[in-house]
Amino acid sequence: MSGIVVMMNGLPGAMGHEVSQACIRRGLTLAPVALTGGGQPADCQVTEGSTSVTVKLVGPDAAGSQRKALEELKKAHGNRLVIIDFTHPTAVNPNGDLYTSVGVTYVMGTTGGDREALMKATNDSGVYAVIAPNMGKQIVALQATMERMARDFPGAFSGYKLEVTESHQKTKADTSGTAKALVSSFQKMGVDKFEMDDIKMLRDDESQKAFGVSEEHLNGHAWHTYTLKSGDGSVEFQFKHNVSGRRTYSEGVADAVQFIAAKCAEKSKKRTFDMIDILEAGVMQ
Amino acid sequence: MSGIVVMMNGLPGAMGHEVSQACIRRGLTLAPVALTGGGQPADCQVTEGSTSVTVKLVGPDAAGSQRKALEELKKAHGNRLVIIDFTHPTAVNPNGDLYTSVGVTYVMGTTGGDREALMKATNDSGVYAVIAPNMGKQIVALQATMERMARDFPGAFSGYKLEVTESHQKTKADTSGTAKALVSSFQKMGVDKFEMDDIKMLRDDESQKAFGVSEEHLNGHAWHTYTLKSGDGSVEFQFKHNVSGRRTYSEGVADAVQFIAAKCAEKSKKRTFDMIDILEAGVMQ
Repeated sequence: MSGIVVMMNGLPGAMGHEVSQACIRRGLTLAPVALTGGGQPADCQVTEGSTSVTVKLVGPDAAGSQRKALEELKKAHGNRLVIIDFTHPTAVNPNGDLYTSVGVTYVMGTTGGDREALMKATNDSGVYAVIAPNMGKQIVALQATMERMARDFPGAFSGYKLEVTESHQKTKADTSGTAKALVSSFQKMGVDKFEMDDIKMLRDDESQKAFGVSEEHLNGHAWHTYTLKSGDGSVEFQFKHNVSGRRTYSEGVADAVQFIAAKCAEKSKKRTFDMIDILEAGVMQ
Repeated sequence: MSGIVVMMNGLPGAMGHEVSQACIRRGLTLAPVALTGGGQPADCQVTEGSTSVTVKLVGPDAAGSQRKALEELKKAHGNRLVIIDFTHPTAVNPNGDLYTSVGVTYVMGTTGGDREALMKATNDSGVYAVIAPNMGKQIVALQATMERMARDFPGAFSGYKLEVTESHQKTKADTSGTAKALVSSFQKMGVDKFEMDDIKMLRDDESQKAFGVSEEHLNGHAWHTYTLKSGDGSVEFQFKHNVSGRRTYSEGVADAVQFIAAKCAEKSKKRTFDMIDILEAGVMQ
């Protein structure tokens, strides 16, 4: 599948920039126009290596202008057009409705919104889409693997004590969803009583530096440590996944774009996918 | 299944002692006679809490005396008798032949010998048996889980660099089989070139203490750390399993004894099992 054109909705946000750069590294074409939220500049510049693209940003203020921009891109590129959405939780459903009504393949990386409504609108439309709240492929793989471990070996950690510490940039208010998912798996494997509130959250510079996060990544990281100790203390298991910056997520998005473009080109019967589908296909770079 | 009587073959070895104690803690009865190798004392004492048992040790010197001891125990306890074998690699096949010819349920924890011949003799005999080279149930579970992760997500760690360090008591000459098995899984997940020789083995006091092993466990531990780093260094995964002493293995043996006694009592059609079967049954304590 060559000649993919990517519309990066969510520029000039940090994730929008990172993803655009990952796509350019893969040899995909970045469309010179994208949808954005209110109060954004008229355009922005994306640079990766020797490639530099000026992207015109179409906000929501003029009625119909976003739909018009999308329709024009679709007319120009047909099925080679793939939308990536890293916008805002409040935009998830309106954007999903726009993409499906215009009929453009998309990758939804934005979290939040009414996920059930999004899935229904997408399935009803017949549009090809990857809908995935976490694009970090190894982390998604680990999360799915631990869930399978819990299903296959239900009592494996019976009598073990669990400790969980997660560190994210201080702008993240809630507990990590990944940490909660892994805790849920460990609970199924029989660990001693552990509530989600027992997850230790680090959100300040000092404790994060003590945890090993470097100065430059204090404002963008996701570090997790899960420790399991046997009742008598003679056995200890530890699982860590430490992501600094956003590059691994943006690479996962580029994987998703290439995957869904190929599914569209081959007219796959299944049309809605998540990261597990992509991982199982083993097509990641 | 109550009233299980355990014949602990391999006393007075350290593992024989640990396993006997685990069985007593579970409320199983330790038989006052057991088979042992050449050059061992006539008996030994096993103590756990307020229970103390003198076990007569029957060596291989007097022809037929081991068979006779086994037949007498079988006559006294019938199907409630379960043998545990932690003897020597050279005894695996002769002992297996003895157990199957007398018709006693057994748990083979001894490694080495001709495993294929052991399986064949056991399957042909119709005797119930657990044959498992590693009784550390969580470690077996992790090993199986990582193998499944490799099967499900073949390219998950593509482009990652692997580092492996394992530490065992200095009497262990070869590389850890568990470490090799996990490396094999990571290889299938696409990590950069990594040979088994690249596994870093710690076998001396100083490096082991620096690795975190406590003084008292230098002569009995199994510590493993696997680190995976993305090509650009922005993502790091780490998996650790640190076992100090032998207690977790002995608890796994007690699980196996209770499992196989129940299989024998219910006249299970399947008769030969490994630790994965026990883990999947979720019956561990």
